[in-house]
Amino acid sequence: MQLEQHNIQAHNEQALAAHQRAFAYISGEIPDAEGIVARLADFQVAIPSWALGTGGTRFGRFPGGGEPRNLEEKIADIGLLHRLNRSSGAISLHIPWDIPSNPAHIKALAAQQELRFDAMNSNTFQDQPGQALSYKFGSLQNTDKAIRRQAVEHNLEVIRHGVELGSESLTVWLSDGSCFPGQLNFRQAFENTLRGLQEIYAALPAHWKMFVEYKAFEPNFYSTTVGDWGQSYLYASKLGPQAYTLVDLGHHLPNANIEQIVALLLMEGKLGGFHFNDSKYGDDDLTVGSIKPYQLFLIFCELVEGMDARGIDHATGLGWMIDASHNVKDPLEDLLQSVEAIMLAYAQALLVDRKALTAAQAGHDVAAAQEILQKAFRTDVRALAAEARLRAGGALNPLGVYRAANVRAELIRERGAKTFATGL
Amino acid sequence: MQLEQHNIQAHNEQALAAHQRAFAYISGEIPDAEGIVARLADFQVAIPSWALGTGGTRFGRFPGGGEPRNLEEKIADIGLLHRLNRSSGAISLHIPWDIPSNPAHIKALAAQQELRFDAMNSNTFQDQPGQALSYKFGSLQNTDKAIRRQAVEHNLEVIRHGVELGSESLTVWLSDGSCFPGQLNFRQAFENTLRGLQEIYAALPAHWKMFVEYKAFEPNFYSTTVGDWGQSYLYASKLGPQAYTLVDLGHHLPNANIEQIVALLLMEGKLGGFHFNDSKYGDDDLTVGSIKPYQLFLIFCELVEGMDARGIDHATGLGWMIDASHNVKDPLEDLLQSVEAIMLAYAQALLVDRKALTAAQAGHDVAAAQEILQKAFRTDVRALAAEARLRAGGALNPLGVYRAANVRAELIRERGAKTFATGL
Amino acid sequence: MQLEQHNIQAHNEQALAAHQRAFAYISGEIPDAEGIVARLADFQVAIPSWALGTGGTRFGRFPGGGEPRNLEEKIADIGLLHRLNRSSGAISLHIPWDIPSNPAHIKALAAQQELRFDAMNSNTFQDQPGQALSYKFGSLQNTDKAIRRQAVEHNLEVIRHGVELGSESLTVWLSDGSCFPGQLNFRQAFENTLRGLQEIYAALPAHWKMFVEYKAFEPNFYSTTVGDWGQSYLYASKLGPQAYTLVDLGHHLPNANIEQIVALLLMEGKLGGFHFNDSKYGDDDLTVGSIKPYQLFLIFCELVEGMDARGIDHATGLGWMIDASHNVKDPLEDLLQSVEAIMLAYAQALLVDRKALTAAQAGHDVAAAQEILQKAFRTDVRALAAEARLRAGGALNPLGVYRAANVRAELIRERGAKTFATGL
Amino acid sequence: MQLEQHNIQAHNEQALAAHQRAFAYISGEIPDAEGIVARLADFQVAIPSWALGTGGTRFGRFPGGGEPRNLEEKIADIGLLHRLNRSSGAISLHIPWDIPSNPAHIKALAAQQELRFDAMNSNTFQDQPGQALSYKFGSLQNTDKAIRRQAVEHNLEVIRHGVELGSESLTVWLSDGSCFPGQLNFRQAFENTLRGLQEIYAALPAHWKMFVEYKAFEPNFYSTTVGDWGQSYLYASKLGPQAYTLVDLGHHLPNANIEQIVALLLMEGKLGGFHFNDSKYGDDDLTVGSIKPYQLFLIFCELVEGMDARGIDHATGLGWMIDASHNVKDPLEDLLQSVEAIMLAYAQALLVDRKALTAAQAGHDVAAAQEILQKAFRTDVRALAAEARLRAGGALNPLGVYRAANVRAELIRERGAKTFATGL
Repeated sequence: MQLEQHNIQAHNEQALAAHQRAFAYISGEIPDAEGIVARLADFQVAIPSWALGTGGTRFGRFPGGGEPRNLEEKIADIGLLHRLNRSSGAISLHIPWDIPSNPAHIKALAAQQELRFDAMNSNTFQDQPGQALSYKFGSLQNTDKAIRRQAVEHNLEVIRHGVELGSESLTVWLSDGSCFPGQLNFRQAFENTLRGLQEIYAALPAHWKMFVEYKAFEPNFYSTTVGDWGQSYLYASKLGPQAYTLVDLGHHLPNANIEQIVALLLMEGKLGGFHFNDSKYGDDDLTVGSIKPYQLFLIFCELVEGMDARGIDHATGLGWMIDASHNVKDPLEDLLQSVEAIMLAYAQALLVDRKALTAAQAGHDVAAAQEILQKAFRTDVRALAAEARLRAGGALNPLGVYRAANVRAELIRERGAKTFATGL
Repeated sequence: MQLEQHNIQAHNEQALAAHQRAFAYISGEIPDAEGIVARLADFQVAIPSWALGTGGTRFGRFPGGGEPRNLEEKIADIGLLHRLNRSSGAISLHIPWDIPSNPAHIKALAAQQELRFDAMNSNTFQDQPGQALSYKFGSLQNTDKAIRRQAVEHNLEVIRHGVELGSESLTVWLSDGSCFPGQLNFRQAFENTLRGLQEIYAALPAHWKMFVEYKAFEPNFYSTTVGDWGQSYLYASKLGPQAYTLVDLGHHLPNANIEQIVALLLMEGKLGGFHFNDSKYGDDDLTVGSIKPYQLFLIFCELVEGMDARGIDHATGLGWMIDASHNVKDPLEDLLQSVEAIMLAYAQALLVDRKALTAAQAGHDVAAAQEILQKAFRTDVRALAAEARLRAGGALNPLGVYRAANVRAELIRERGAKTFATGL
Repeated sequence: MQLEQHNIQAHNEQALAAHQRAFAYISGEIPDAEGIVARLADFQVAIPSWALGTGGTRFGRFPGGGEPRNLEEKIADIGLLHRLNRSSGAISLHIPWDIPSNPAHIKALAAQQELRFDAMNSNTFQDQPGQALSYKFGSLQNTDKAIRRQAVEHNLEVIRHGVELGSESLTVWLSDGSCFPGQLNFRQAFENTLRGLQEIYAALPAHWKMFVEYKAFEPNFYSTTVGDWGQSYLYASKLGPQAYTLVDLGHHLPNANIEQIVALLLMEGKLGGFHFNDSKYGDDDLTVGSIKPYQLFLIFCELVEGMDARGIDHATGLGWMIDASHNVKDPLEDLLQSVEAIMLAYAQALLVDRKALTAAQAGHDVAAAQEILQKAFRTDVRALAAEARLRAGGALNPLGVYRAANVRAELIRERGAKTFATGL
Repeated sequence: MQLEQHNIQAHNEQALAAHQRAFAYISGEIPDAEGIVARLADFQVAIPSWALGTGGTRFGRFPGGGEPRNLEEKIADIGLLHRLNRSSGAISLHIPWDIPSNPAHIKALAAQQELRFDAMNSNTFQDQPGQALSYKFGSLQNTDKAIRRQAVEHNLEVIRHGVELGSESLTVWLSDGSCFPGQLNFRQAFENTLRGLQEIYAALPAHWKMFVEYKAFEPNFYSTTVGDWGQSYLYASKLGPQAYTLVDLGHHLPNANIEQIVALLLMEGKLGGFHFNDSKYGDDDLTVGSIKPYQLFLIFCELVEGMDARGIDHATGLGWMIDASHNVKDPLEDLLQSVEAIMLAYAQALLVDRKALTAAQAGHDVAAAQEILQKAFRTDVRALAAEARLRAGGALNPLGVYRAANVRAELIRERGAKTFATGL
């Protein structure tokens, strides 16, 4: 599937007048539209390879068509997204679903699409065909040393694949935990896990980061061995300076104040990156910003403030990834919507009048502090994100171009109506 | 305290140019700016008398100053809000905190401020000085017939006060419930409560409505006798056509889909009205729209759709009230922020392209449905609300005028630094 | 697999002395041990056919071995459970997973095992191979009339299968709902669903019941078209006297007071039955009583009180079913544990001194009410349940016999190590 | 009020036969009844002075009578509890509510009642009459240095009072936080708080401990500056070896796995102690074990296992305190019920067959692990706790003696019907 540049241009021409009105208006009303546009242009969000296909629930799965059948097609799909929004210039692979048989070829393909390889993801939450030992009762936490060994080896293999592709980080998400009281000795599970992580950490190249992802529950339903930011922080601080906590928005108990967690992890120098998504009830991996866009904005406010306070580069200092599962939408459309939501939240956070906010905070002027945040949030910043795309050669309206070009129909024609992109 | 019209005008003049740019821009981009402005001008939100003072928690209270010391001053405060935003033209009284000793005088005062009397609120969640029997173990649910009688009589008295003032509805919020398993026989508590409500209902003037408010918990901590919309609906449907369910946004279990409840109650003809506020954890009575503005928008989308489907007048068909408690903000500032948040959510809901949405729903085009809603939500509609205020003689920036005029300082000078507006 | 009676007897003989001590002790301490034993002997819990195999999560599945490969083997497994605990004398089938090709044969098999056919379950939450139209966007709620028709027809077919087998109820669990705001018109979804249910209801044999199950979320992640007891009650009351609400313990928002819901539905004559399980976070379908045994006891307190108040027979008046998913346990062991937990909770609820409780409630003696409930809950009633089993020819320690007889190893030998019992 | 020893003895004589049957039975069935009785006899739970009176909610308060009017009467009340259950031999004071004007006299009084002084509690969540600066916007977190100074000084004063009385620990619960997004800079609030805690820590006597209590929300409703165990751990680990985390059961987000938190804090050597209570929805401070007794048991399982693993003395190694608020019960009755629930959970945890559990965990025998825990939980251990009381000179049935002796009526006669025990 080649969505040609002329498709984008044709579409942009139609939309240009309205965009120019919008951009001119907003540029006249806010202090530094150009600065924000430049920031947005730099900001790239990695697309996980597993989000290119239809997900499912434990009750069923309703596959769509035209899903990528191999790593080459996954790269093609992300390339397409990136051509549209110029903000998806990275891919996050999952091993063993995406083992590159010919890394040099895969690297070349990605480079062609202007994509880099973001964090590598290991998988010890499933048993693969032919796998010697089962992860049914956990991997690194397991009471069985051989199973722990197998899980460590798998992660070392993931690092090796990542090195070949030029990735520079490893995301370890462990589904380890328990389904019933009594199943685990929590302390022993923690200690086993820590030892395993230490072995993996020891194999990290010097310029790599390790992200320790936490999750409150699911697929384990009573306890999780990396269950909250406090536990992830414990692991990361015991591991060393290359280890960080990774925050996935869906992995919290009800009502959690995620933005505060973000601020504290930044304060401690232990925030590694993000898995963006949204949810209403559990870890539902819905489109970013589709349920709680204001929370997303508040998180970006903390990110901008905290990164600036520590001198962390917005675009490269942390890992920005989407983690999504698409049950009822076209995966590519969902990803376009997710990236857009991220860009808008980031733009709004950049709009916040920090000086005024600091003064309001110092003076306990709570109403003013709220006004300052909401002024930014209520501002229509879509033209800023569109302008950033336009200047980078992308589409003013990525979803519009995607639809107008009948991309999905084309993909189905090429790849078939029954395809499976993920190993789930 | 008289905030004079010239204060408002002076302020408006300064803000006018920017407003005109904004209004011109938005008017050019959306189909019916004038229609929305007109709708906004009609929309009035009742202010509860208890929200004019500082609230508190069970841990403490940090009073502000200049709070109204009596009903006359409460009317003055709401009049002031109404002059600023032209959207707060109603007052919701609480008996016994606001018993009008001279109803004719009070009516005249309110009329002077262009205020009408919205729903009357009864109170059986506290014991008043000199009260014969205690509500410690509930009021209408009580196993003691004399206590139930007392609670019924109190509600009848509230109706009488309301009749004198021209109110046309009674809000019954019962804190009845239990703190421990075993304390109540749930069925008996429900039946006692129903009988009590029936006696109150029988005393309603023919043109009055009764609102049965529900709440998941607090101040009872194990069960609540009107605990969710299902229970409120049971009462309201057994009571008769003048009885309705009242939805208070803070009165739900975590993650509840309130917008769906709203849609279903409208479908059944049993939605009576709203208590607007916001919350993150429990019933925190925070400023409307300060935590989950997108949820507020989604609720307004259901309201607009459902009212239109049943031919209910937006401005008068349902009861619109704020329910708030202010612990760290100036109450009047908080109320101005709350009304503004309501107006913006309403305006955005009016912006939704219903025809396109219906088509997307019919065709299962989930991504398009989301785009349609988010397009409306992402639109900056502040100029529409400001224009509605401007045309009605209000302030472009009510909070700005309030602050510029040093209203709070003036009120403290008039009323003192230690005043208590509520009976809590 | 035939677990012979002599296995049970041999095991019972070993355990008899300790049991007799325990039973003698408890019989001497409580007023009516014999009465409770008799009640327990009558109480039968239906086992769902899908709970005989290993379940899974959206992340993976770790199958066990020896799972039943067809309906005959499912009946055999439940027969085995029933021989052990004499309390599992019913089977709840799921169509299309359990379509009986030869109903007469299946009926005979079940009779041989002393099993009756409890509620039939329809399935519109998955697409079956060869199915004409997809339920991706819902079944009875669907905007597409042909899909609604197909879902209705499926339910009619389920009723026909049930009639052939002698079942007398239909459980309709709809996963219908939406994953994103805007996806559904809530009112239209409700109305479509109601119409579909009405068509199904019209086909019910006169002595059948229809159970309308509700669920707060999953597999839909934003709204559910039968989302809470209030919605289920609306459907059931609009449908007619044969329609009831079915309560599944896992299908609620966090912190819900399920025991109160049970009491109110009984009061309204609309409680149809139960799906027992347990959970900590979401709908985790864990072993009954494994997480919140006190809540289970409180629910049984309401059941006993409410059934007695309405003259409902404990054993036959409502539908008692387990709904479980086993990710880390042997399914048959898990079911034995679940039935035991139900029996203990029921026995403890029968132990409650109702007269004293009523007096405490009448006198607002909250501490005494708690003492009365906790006295029952703290009593060790295991000997009562064991005695009921013993008298009925079952095992004093069902799990012990099951393990001693190496049932699972035997089943694996017979059926193989890789088998799949469910259609999930 | 003197509940005389002969009251207790007379009551015990009546109850003795039944108790002896129960104790003889349980002693014959479990391996080490005597060992457990001895452990129970050693276990003392501190009573907080504020729990001796009626609490309230933000909606109202329904006071009881006979509440202690001063510190002397509070000591008398706890002495009475201790005579009844022999397990309440410590008092936890709250400054400024319990400032001892004559420490030597107070010490003597307490010694007379065989009470020691447990943790001292500071209060920066309220403004006291005459207080120079307000804690409306927080204390140690405050942007105003003078307010931070005042809060530090207050804590130093609390330590001085504690030293005079022989206390050896300070519990710092900060209600610091924010009600609205934007109100706080999270990082600055953390850093200010840390600096303040460091100043307080520096003033601790060498043998003292400092407990840093966390709370998810309330009275602040958006963020809390010591919000979860992770934050408390950060503070405690930065402060030094005398600083520990204090776990209050009610201070968590919905569904939190508190037992795992306990296990991890013990692992890290940072668990300081407990505030026992129970809750269904928020921080409701209900009677211990009244809502989730199984969770309480699971927590004690972790405590016993973790303390044994680290060689921590059960009775003296950690701080055991109740934190309660009584809205509808007699406070003394509630405290008797709470202590009893703690003793039963502790006894059941001691009953767990650890060797078998460890083996089940090592072999992934999840069903067996559950059986082992539930076997202990289902055992009726009331006779063990009663025997421990009996041997120590307490009452077999403390609540029964309390009621039979008409203690509350007597207290009302002595102290009056309108008394206020707390400063809330």
